[in-house]
Amino acid sequence: MNPRLDISTLSRRVDAVRRSMARASVDTLLVTHLPNIQYLTGFAGTAGALVLSHDDCVLIVDSRYVTAARDLAAGLPDALLSVRPVAHSYDETVRDVIAATAAAPVGFEAAHLTVARFNALRALLSPDPAAESTGQVDRNGRLVPTEGVVERVRMVKDDGEIAVFREAALRLSEIARRLPELARPGQTEREVAHAIEDAMRRSGFSRPAFDTIVASGRNSALPHASPTDRVIQSGDPTVLDFGGVYGGYCVDLTRTVQLGGFSAEIAPIFAAVAEAQRAAIDTVGPGRRPSEVDAAARSVLERHGLGEAFGHGTGHGLGLEIHEAPRVGRPMPGQPDEPLEPGVVITIEPGAYVPGLGGVRIEDDVLVTTDGCEVLTDVPTFL
Amino acid sequence: MNPRLDISTLSRRVDAVRRSMARASVDTLLVTHLPNIQYLTGFAGTAGALVLSHDDCVLIVDSRYVTAARDLAAGLPDALLSVRPVAHSYDETVRDVIAATAAAPVGFEAAHLTVARFNALRALLSPDPAAESTGQVDRNGRLVPTEGVVERVRMVKDDGEIAVFREAALRLSEIARRLPELARPGQTEREVAHAIEDAMRRSGFSRPAFDTIVASGRNSALPHASPTDRVIQSGDPTVLDFGGVYGGYCVDLTRTVQLGGFSAEIAPIFAAVAEAQRAAIDTVGPGRRPSEVDAAARSVLERHGLGEAFGHGTGHGLGLEIHEAPRVGRPMPGQPDEPLEPGVVITIEPGAYVPGLGGVRIEDDVLVTTDGCEVLTDVPTFL
Repeated sequence: MNPRLDISTLSRRVDAVRRSMARASVDTLLVTHLPNIQYLTGFAGTAGALVLSHDDCVLIVDSRYVTAARDLAAGLPDALLSVRPVAHSYDETVRDVIAATAAAPVGFEAAHLTVARFNALRALLSPDPAAESTGQVDRNGRLVPTEGVVERVRMVKDDGEIAVFREAALRLSEIARRLPELARPGQTEREVAHAIEDAMRRSGFSRPAFDTIVASGRNSALPHASPTDRVIQSGDPTVLDFGGVYGGYCVDLTRTVQLGGFSAEIAPIFAAVAEAQRAAIDTVGPGRRPSEVDAAARSVLERHGLGEAFGHGTGHGLGLEIHEAPRVGRPMPGQPDEPLEPGVVITIEPGAYVPGLGGVRIEDDVLVTTDGCEVLTDVPTFL
Repeated sequence: MNPRLDISTLSRRVDAVRRSMARASVDTLLVTHLPNIQYLTGFAGTAGALVLSHDDCVLIVDSRYVTAARDLAAGLPDALLSVRPVAHSYDETVRDVIAATAAAPVGFEAAHLTVARFNALRALLSPDPAAESTGQVDRNGRLVPTEGVVERVRMVKDDGEIAVFREAALRLSEIARRLPELARPGQTEREVAHAIEDAMRRSGFSRPAFDTIVASGRNSALPHASPTDRVIQSGDPTVLDFGGVYGGYCVDLTRTVQLGGFSAEIAPIFAAVAEAQRAAIDTVGPGRRPSEVDAAARSVLERHGLGEAFGHGTGHGLGLEIHEAPRVGRPMPGQPDEPLEPGVVITIEPGAYVPGLGGVRIEDDVLVTTDGCEVLTDVPTFL
């Protein structure tokens, strides 16, 4: 469980989400995505629902979490947080809270609510079997799909969050600088992954933010390889991609090492990826679209004949989740590509992968500032 | 990435899911839930989609995973596995594969597909803006919600899976027997959680199956507490709930220890929970409903005046996921409660929690056999 959020942070976040709700034309928002609930309440359990309206912010939790949730809400006004224990089931209690709130339209999080749960909730809220839903807008005007109402607010980090990111990135960087000693030839990929995860725990991370990637030799050509029992050989290019959760927030870093120096085949790939990463970082700033940042990296790799070898996006937002808004990639129809704002934290992680030969990825975490960006991680590109 | 599944295992699983599809009256199934994809292909990436029809089993993956996926499919007939790389986006490629398959109705996994993605897919499959969906059945008969088509097959483990479970439970039990030495007074809850997770890694688990729970003293009254910096005191009741992923499969175990013996307040709670757990285990067998198993534990706790103190269910299925079918709890409207079959693996984990005093939970993993059950974990109840 996270520490309690102070009342000014909570009220700033809740107010910002209420404004975001108004822009989405909903009077009530049913929040089912757990990181969004955590952002708005501090509650970090494995189940819960939140019903946010103009006057109330009701956290619905089952018996396992009632005591913890009440501790979070103690002393707070109902407009910021109150707790409602689940009576029979989550959905029935959500129905009861929404019925009591009675401020339609009620938005739900379409990117997180499953079709099965939507149908169950719709049936509970509109017990008339003749009532029909389009999956777009409920006929009774009760359930309206929304996307990113809380995520758009979460995208811009507040000062407290930025302080946590700086500390987390510093701690992750200290581990990254030790990679040449952690990833010695003769060890298996799996052993190196465990050593990195141990180092993160010792450094104060509560857990890895994702399964650590240690991909050596030809495995390095697989961008999302899982560590194997392969023994790392001297001269192997080795991609090490790891991250941890610190104070609730995720940081993420990749370096590619080749002990004894890069071979003649890998060296030009390394140089091109490093140049692409530098170009992308130089592009980050307020008002720049994520797709422009991606294009900066991509055009460098294309110039080096490595366009096809770079199959993934340039980066992603970081926060309570390891992958959050914004997506830093090629423009895609229907996908947001809003200009960056100060306070946004993203990864910059271009790569190039040549099957049968190997791959290189280099990743840092950057904070968008008022006049450009600050690279939060602090590790030499070439280790 | 998991090792390749042998062809007889793959073909048994794919055939069983095809029969399950027939019972659900769908000719094609779009599988988007990653553990279901892993079960049917061995593919364990972080993104992917599978389109399963009578004649084809098409795994759709993005560029990060194409090489790994092709390795899995090498030498297999199309009816068992073929790979289709994502062209522009997952959903467009899913649309293309479904259009080529053309065997409607196409089922989707309603418990896993979000409303947003359903709407996007529906729009791609029925570009006519006048076409309208109910969220129940697509007007064009293309997309039909299904629930549990793959999960019902996964619920009954095959011999290879049972062998992995036995080994995993043995390894977890060895760690559990060392709990009194791992959870010594003077350490913080967090330190103990890390020691347990380290022990799991050293024992061959690839990762913890969930965030380890170490809840000491009054914290033990919180069934899902996160480890804190609280120093464990001599005489604290301490709930230790941990599990790991071994060979892809999740095992889960809880013991409650009180160093120096249980106090006069906790001892009767411990005895009641132990009795409830024994009663539940004695009820497990083929033909028994999960709700009967739950009732066996619940009635013991009620008899001891602890009915209100047992707020959660008695257990859950284990497999590729830490929580899977069946749910072992009170009967709930609309929730399956099918009789247990040999090969099902579940946890039995009743508990009782008294705010301000403390709590007790005891958990083992059991396999339903032809004439009762086999307790896979092997650890004294009282450590």
